[in-house]
Amino acid sequence: MYRTHTCGELRISDVDNKVTLAGWVQRSRKMGGMTFVDIRDRYGITQLVFNQDINGELCEKANKLGREWVIQVKGKVLARSNKNSKIPTGDIEILVDELNILNSSETPPFTIEDESDGGDDLRMKFRYLDLRRTPVRQNLEMRHKMTIAIRNYLDKQGFIEVETPILIGSTPEGARDFVVPSRMNPNEFYALPQSPQLYKQLLMVAGFDRYFQIAKCFRDEDLRADRQPEFTQIDCEMSFVEQNDILGIFEGMAKYLFKEIRGIEFKDDFIRMTWHEAMKKYGSDKPDLRFGMTFVELKDCTETGKFTVFDSAKYIGAICVPRCADFTRKQIDQLTEFVKRPQVGAKGMVYVRCEADGSYKSSVDKFYDQTQLKTWAEACKANPGDLILILSGENIIKTQKALCELRLEMGTTRLGLRNKDVFAPLWVVDFPMFEWDEEAQRFFAMHHPFTSPKLEDVQYLESDPGAVRANAYDMVINGVELGGGSIRIHDHELQERIFKSLGFTPERAEKQFGFLMNAFKFGAPPHGGLAFGLDRFVSMLAGLDSIRDCIAFPKNNSGRDVMSDAPSQIDDEQLEELYLELKQPDK
Amino acid sequence: MYRTHTCGELRISDVDNKVTLAGWVQRSRKMGGMTFVDIRDRYGITQLVFNQDINGELCEKANKLGREWVIQVKGKVLARSNKNSKIPTGDIEILVDELNILNSSETPPFTIEDESDGGDDLRMKFRYLDLRRTPVRQNLEMRHKMTIAIRNYLDKQGFIEVETPILIGSTPEGARDFVVPSRMNPNEFYALPQSPQLYKQLLMVAGFDRYFQIAKCFRDEDLRADRQPEFTQIDCEMSFVEQNDILGIFEGMAKYLFKEIRGIEFKDDFIRMTWHEAMKKYGSDKPDLRFGMTFVELKDCTETGKFTVFDSAKYIGAICVPRCADFTRKQIDQLTEFVKRPQVGAKGMVYVRCEADGSYKSSVDKFYDQTQLKTWAEACKANPGDLILILSGENIIKTQKALCELRLEMGTTRLGLRNKDVFAPLWVVDFPMFEWDEEAQRFFAMHHPFTSPKLEDVQYLESDPGAVRANAYDMVINGVELGGGSIRIHDHELQERIFKSLGFTPERAEKQFGFLMNAFKFGAPPHGGLAFGLDRFVSMLAGLDSIRDCIAFPKNNSGRDVMSDAPSQIDDEQLEELYLELKQPDK
Repeated sequence: MYRTHTCGELRISDVDNKVTLAGWVQRSRKMGGMTFVDIRDRYGITQLVFNQDINGELCEKANKLGREWVIQVKGKVLARSNKNSKIPTGDIEILVDELNILNSSETPPFTIEDESDGGDDLRMKFRYLDLRRTPVRQNLEMRHKMTIAIRNYLDKQGFIEVETPILIGSTPEGARDFVVPSRMNPNEFYALPQSPQLYKQLLMVAGFDRYFQIAKCFRDEDLRADRQPEFTQIDCEMSFVEQNDILGIFEGMAKYLFKEIRGIEFKDDFIRMTWHEAMKKYGSDKPDLRFGMTFVELKDCTETGKFTVFDSAKYIGAICVPRCADFTRKQIDQLTEFVKRPQVGAKGMVYVRCEADGSYKSSVDKFYDQTQLKTWAEACKANPGDLILILSGENIIKTQKALCELRLEMGTTRLGLRNKDVFAPLWVVDFPMFEWDEEAQRFFAMHHPFTSPKLEDVQYLESDPGAVRANAYDMVINGVELGGGSIRIHDHELQERIFKSLGFTPERAEKQFGFLMNAFKFGAPPHGGLAFGLDRFVSMLAGLDSIRDCIAFPKNNSGRDVMSDAPSQIDDEQLEELYLELKQPDK
Repeated sequence: MYRTHTCGELRISDVDNKVTLAGWVQRSRKMGGMTFVDIRDRYGITQLVFNQDINGELCEKANKLGREWVIQVKGKVLARSNKNSKIPTGDIEILVDELNILNSSETPPFTIEDESDGGDDLRMKFRYLDLRRTPVRQNLEMRHKMTIAIRNYLDKQGFIEVETPILIGSTPEGARDFVVPSRMNPNEFYALPQSPQLYKQLLMVAGFDRYFQIAKCFRDEDLRADRQPEFTQIDCEMSFVEQNDILGIFEGMAKYLFKEIRGIEFKDDFIRMTWHEAMKKYGSDKPDLRFGMTFVELKDCTETGKFTVFDSAKYIGAICVPRCADFTRKQIDQLTEFVKRPQVGAKGMVYVRCEADGSYKSSVDKFYDQTQLKTWAEACKANPGDLILILSGENIIKTQKALCELRLEMGTTRLGLRNKDVFAPLWVVDFPMFEWDEEAQRFFAMHHPFTSPKLEDVQYLESDPGAVRANAYDMVINGVELGGGSIRIHDHELQERIFKSLGFTPERAEKQFGFLMNAFKFGAPPHGGLAFGLDRFVSMLAGLDSIRDCIAFPKNNSGRDVMSDAPSQIDDEQLEELYLELKQPDK
């Protein structure tokens, strides 16, 4: 060992001991005949002292140290006259009597401090230096602590972690699969898993009863905001369970993690909200419950025959923003611009100011009188001083989603109600089984095609697919979907009916899911499961803005690792061995 | 929940309780008016009873159950009159009053019993059924227990588990890399890591101090006996350590695992043997120490000028096989055939029978008299009744390796000394830095090129590379290399000298290892590490013959998953999106 102690370990009780430390030079400063050097390692920072009068040569050597040099020092622990209460080692310093330079360092391209002057690109290129910064390292330490806690929790619950393969079969519809040419099997390809879904269901057929895996998954798609081509899933599956059992186990896990990692205790059960209610009240299947402003439907109290926009709308929804009646015309206009952005997609916005004197001022004053506006205000439970914002539209879900954006915008930027240290968890349940696709003019499975419908809704499978609810659930915290899953179909005949509803021919179902379907003929138990996004879960607990900040070596939005410059071209020889030829991409 | 208890849980203290169980029909038998059904889940087997007299209809239903059907039963726990001491639930049975068939099953292609009648191919094709068998499942349970124990041990020692990327850069010499075409970056490829080596060293540069990861690694090579294209490594690295520190931590881990998983305690420190000694005494860098028969060199007592085979040999080595002087001519001939096999490669074998009367009988009687043979026997510490086997040759290491094979053959098949429940661990240390390649007529690094030489040997780097020892070490148990590693070079100049010794031009070194070398300029700490093969480690503790038996979904020797039929062809569309064209393999 190059050290007797770490740089975060020494305390006042160690005074007079001879110690050896090793680490990086954080900074150094000369004061009179003294040189002070802060030495840093993962565990902390300790102040070193070199005294010109005691050992001039050594002090000279210390004066030549640069930032980020790696040194080993031996010396005696002294009590500091000038204590630093900001760091745990602030009561002591080391009077150095031996200094060994283990390695020098070029000047880093940015400062290795909590607040760095390195831009994003530079920090990614020199990620190994960025990782030296305490906040970045702490995110990864938290990630480590979380995976240890997850494993211990699930192990205690009887789950077995099973590694499923990374080199799997490519499915004909796996458009977003990464593929891997096989040298031993020319012209054939493996695929990298988008999730271990098939394998975990096979493990249930195999009687493993309770499976989990912290599993790497892969998706070759355009990386929209905050996605990575490889990501990590806490993947779980259980046999002989109903939805309630699964929610219980994993609500327990989430509570355990919040307690272990953040010291936060959730005493009550997580709210369970149907998808229908979530859409109705929040316009989202992942509502942020940290603040109110739930939707109020005004269709019933707007029919006057005067205002055609409202009269022709299928949906009219309002939110009541507390204490914002004093919004200026300009602020209101900005909000109108906001809802008209293509990402939000509303055509316009109606407002009602609830004035302090009990009167109402609205953009639709000429169509509705004070009595009518009062009805709206009462429906919204608005108080004097509140601001009511109203969106309307032809398409119910689209309008709800736009209103959701408006609500979040008001919550975030206008009112500051989305506190990162407040956590509002819930389960969203009873998702619809199918989603109607306007373009394709057919139903698609909202989840993967093994998701079980609610048995009481199976009767509507053919007659009214839109009414069939799935046994599917998501865990949502603060507007982020942390995980989700479903009870699976274990019955062969039901599975065939579902495939049919989804427009699969028997041949296509066979080609795509044949070996799973075959496995199901040999006694598949009732089962279900779920998967959490580990990256998102860590980000949530660490209060990060991007999942990238809790990944050691992330890729950028083009899927590149700018540090090692991957992906890159490969040798012709290698291509030849794989029986591959490159085609010129069309520009 | 479909059950109140598992099938392995009920005991005599549960008698008279009403319970619900769910699981698979293991077997059923009719005896008079009674039907007995064994119901199985991961946790055990419980006997169910159906009584024709009590409920004829229910009993009829039970009679129709087939093997591997999935059922749920409700009933009362009874004490068995006829106890079965072989299973933990053998004191009780369930008198069933409700039977629900959850799923039927086709007849499985082989029996789901501890000893199956399924051949290897069939078992792999229906792996999900094979995994239902207790011994197979137990291997995976042990694997899970081991990874939990490994993580908890390393966490306690201050190690942080960090996930390093699976999609990395391809290196120009990565001939055995799997590559992955990137859709977003046409004509460019990621590679899958053969190990996280570069990343773990970067994490040391990043100051992570103690890193580990249970990491998937990949190698696209012909699968010789017992290799898999994807395998799992316990990958570790530490900073500010010397070799001794690393051996201490990981010897501790191995001891902890043997204790936790097998209840075996190693009281003494593991033997540390130099590579040189291991070759001299066992002809192997992974000697099996479960039995003796160490090599005795006879060169000094064979020179007579009569027997040219021995006179011209550079190496003459013997092993003394206890109590085998009575080997027949035929048995000796078989051994001679054995050593002459191309895999062993000896030209012949000389034997000396130490007869009970103190005389010697040898295949080289005509060249050596009794006095001379006695010298050999004394050198071998042979007793009357022992058999001395001698190999000789031009090439010292080749002859030692052949003698090693002979020793193992005698230990295994002839003497049965290789007991799977005995564990003989050791560290092999001081490996040579370079290996001479006859064909290429140059030195190659025996380990990867970041391995540090022993500093006292650095002086011979240019003058006598063959004499330079590496700071490298392997943990070996029972002739199996479970893990290995080294102290790395952290000094830029020394690294450049090593590259030069290995024949790297600066350009090639830059192209291949540039970003690591660059990172090393910013204050790389002294560091070192090692990696264990998890698959091998589990196999060792579970007493398995093949690593495949501890992998849930292994691939066969051609790298194929016969269950899902991967790898396979992919769509033309997909190839087009990747800008790839297939070439016809030459037949």
